[in-house]
Amino acid sequence: MPGYDWISFTTDYGLSDGFVAACHGVIARITPAVRVIDVTHQIPPADVARGAAVLAQTVPHLPAAVHVAVVDPGVGTARRGVAVEAAHGLLVGPDNGLLPPAADALGGVRRVMVLDNPGWFADVVSPTFHGRDIFAPVAARLAAGADPAGAGSEVDPATLARLPEPVVAVGDGWLEAEVAMVDRFGNVQLAAPGEALERLGDPLRVGGMVARRAGTFGEAAPGALLVYVDSADRVAIAINGGRAVVALGVTPGDIVRITTA
Amino acid sequence: MPGYDWISFTTDYGLSDGFVAACHGVIARITPAVRVIDVTHQIPPADVARGAAVLAQTVPHLPAAVHVAVVDPGVGTARRGVAVEAAHGLLVGPDNGLLPPAADALGGVRRVMVLDNPGWFADVVSPTFHGRDIFAPVAARLAAGADPAGAGSEVDPATLARLPEPVVAVGDGWLEAEVAMVDRFGNVQLAAPGEALERLGDPLRVGGMVARRAGTFGEAAPGALLVYVDSADRVAIAINGGRAVVALGVTPGDIVRITTA
Amino acid sequence: MPGYDWISFTTDYGLSDGFVAACHGVIARITPAVRVIDVTHQIPPADVARGAAVLAQTVPHLPAAVHVAVVDPGVGTARRGVAVEAAHGLLVGPDNGLLPPAADALGGVRRVMVLDNPGWFADVVSPTFHGRDIFAPVAARLAAGADPAGAGSEVDPATLARLPEPVVAVGDGWLEAEVAMVDRFGNVQLAAPGEALERLGDPLRVGGMVARRAGTFGEAAPGALLVYVDSADRVAIAINGGRAVVALGVTPGDIVRITTA
Repeated sequence: MPGYDWISFTTDYGLSDGFVAACHGVIARITPAVRVIDVTHQIPPADVARGAAVLAQTVPHLPAAVHVAVVDPGVGTARRGVAVEAAHGLLVGPDNGLLPPAADALGGVRRVMVLDNPGWFADVVSPTFHGRDIFAPVAARLAAGADPAGAGSEVDPATLARLPEPVVAVGDGWLEAEVAMVDRFGNVQLAAPGEALERLGDPLRVGGMVARRAGTFGEAAPGALLVYVDSADRVAIAINGGRAVVALGVTPGDIVRITTA
Repeated sequence: MPGYDWISFTTDYGLSDGFVAACHGVIARITPAVRVIDVTHQIPPADVARGAAVLAQTVPHLPAAVHVAVVDPGVGTARRGVAVEAAHGLLVGPDNGLLPPAADALGGVRRVMVLDNPGWFADVVSPTFHGRDIFAPVAARLAAGADPAGAGSEVDPATLARLPEPVVAVGDGWLEAEVAMVDRFGNVQLAAPGEALERLGDPLRVGGMVARRAGTFGEAAPGALLVYVDSADRVAIAINGGRAVVALGVTPGDIVRITTA
Repeated sequence: MPGYDWISFTTDYGLSDGFVAACHGVIARITPAVRVIDVTHQIPPADVARGAAVLAQTVPHLPAAVHVAVVDPGVGTARRGVAVEAAHGLLVGPDNGLLPPAADALGGVRRVMVLDNPGWFADVVSPTFHGRDIFAPVAARLAAGADPAGAGSEVDPATLARLPEPVVAVGDGWLEAEVAMVDRFGNVQLAAPGEALERLGDPLRVGGMVARRAGTFGEAAPGALLVYVDSADRVAIAINGGRAVVALGVTPGDIVRITTA
């Protein structure tokens, strides 16, 4: 098998401990030539939905890779570990909903293996650190060119755990959608695709405030609210020079309603 | 063209989203052999002055590189994107004052190209994420050895946007200077060069407190204030084992006056 | 000398300044082929004990490397800089207790050189940034294959500064141990090795609360306290889905007593 030159790595491990480095080390020992792109390790602890969203929105821009992701509150329990073969890449991690959106973004799930071959794990597996002892070594072997079938038993892709679909509803002059993510700048991304804006006019109304439709931040007056299609092709709300998340008072999972003003 | 083995990367994107990784991915797809040194991605959102200062103080220690920097509140507006050829390296980013101090630290500006060749951009350019869709791909092409002239139209270096010069004034027994940066340890760096201390004695007085002149932190008593020449050759104020920024109550841009006591 | 393909890098520099990147740059200039694994740069400022613990628990999982670590409140004072040859790797940093636990984890100290050869340093050494001007260049030369004897004068390993041994006491049905670390998830790691649990039963009592013995988080009820052997083979306390550090109200260095309930 040809393998992959790159591994991407996404976790909720944070950067204050040595957890991320231990996984880098495990990969380097198994397949030193592979290079790792850290997606983020700042997923809030156990926030599988955010991990899934960040990963799915990032993988389209990464080179062909094995994508390891670990946001895993069920570590060591009966939840399965899986390797997911997508049309354009492999994914490795817990079977808790974290991987499927990224697999979809990579062309869809082709094949799923449950990680039940301990020959691919560390010699001793800590029940609380499968990232280091299972997922990183499996990913390293796959990147090195091992056949994914060697990772474990193939299972029906329909058995993959999936997160509930986010709420998105659109009508003439209105749109309701769940908050998918809030980024570092306080911009509020909804689960609705950019095209959902087509049936809305300008100006708009969001949370009792008037918002302008705009292509970029600077098209709104400083401090003014804008609704735009963001870089992941989702409907998003920002404030030019400010933090929309504060003005709207929302958090991921909340429903936001946008109407033509 | 020979190109560069290294790209340095500085942004205000933070590390909690996938923005930095998406740019790494874009670079890896265009020129996989190039390696990226992350300068920092924790520039406070839209703080161009801090981005400029951190970059300028770091580039002298980096290998020959294309330096991409993105602190870009005007993304998608009429502000230009530029590639700046310095005596010892290339810089790519928005034309908002972010790059010139680093260009000066790299031997001065030689040539400036406005990034107006869309053939070097991503196929679709998001108006809110030029880091991913313009600056990273341009930097990757330059690192791969493309002629900087291909990035776009050459313009007069005098048209580059520059931040205002910070306030620095020195006399016999006194010095007034703007706070340039506060680092992780709470040390307060002034815009004044180290030699500005030559006309001051010892002890000194800063913000109503007595400070000792010292070469390093441990030369002052624990908890005592010291004035020293820092590792970027600037006048700086620290507290041995403490945070000078708290004792002085200053923030970047404030003026600090140091006098012989 | 064969040298090393990897350098690991641990500091309290944080990620908001350019300090870490400057050190990466210094290494890249001296030995560009070497790759750097960042262990963490978020050690709390001057917290030598935490730096030592994170490093010691991470190095067993890293490839053969020169491990540079800099948590160095005494920078520029009489404290020595050292290169420590362990059975399985080299360590470089200040002689303040930071390195010996990692050296022990790498098979024990074989040889110690005081860094007194300025020919290996930067041309100009800042008295406040030995990471950039002494430790990084020394590590880069060692990784490039230079004989460690060239780093400086060999000294008696018994002269290495060591941190005090943490308190660990075990009896029939009880255990007292210092808190070694608290991780991102709020899990409280004690200095006691995992085997110390063998003389305790189940359930247990910690800080007035009942705790279950468990292998992993999900074996306890949501919100319930558990005592387990963590991934570094230490006794640790967690709350399934919560933060044990908040429930216990402890901080590193505090003594925790666990008894059979």
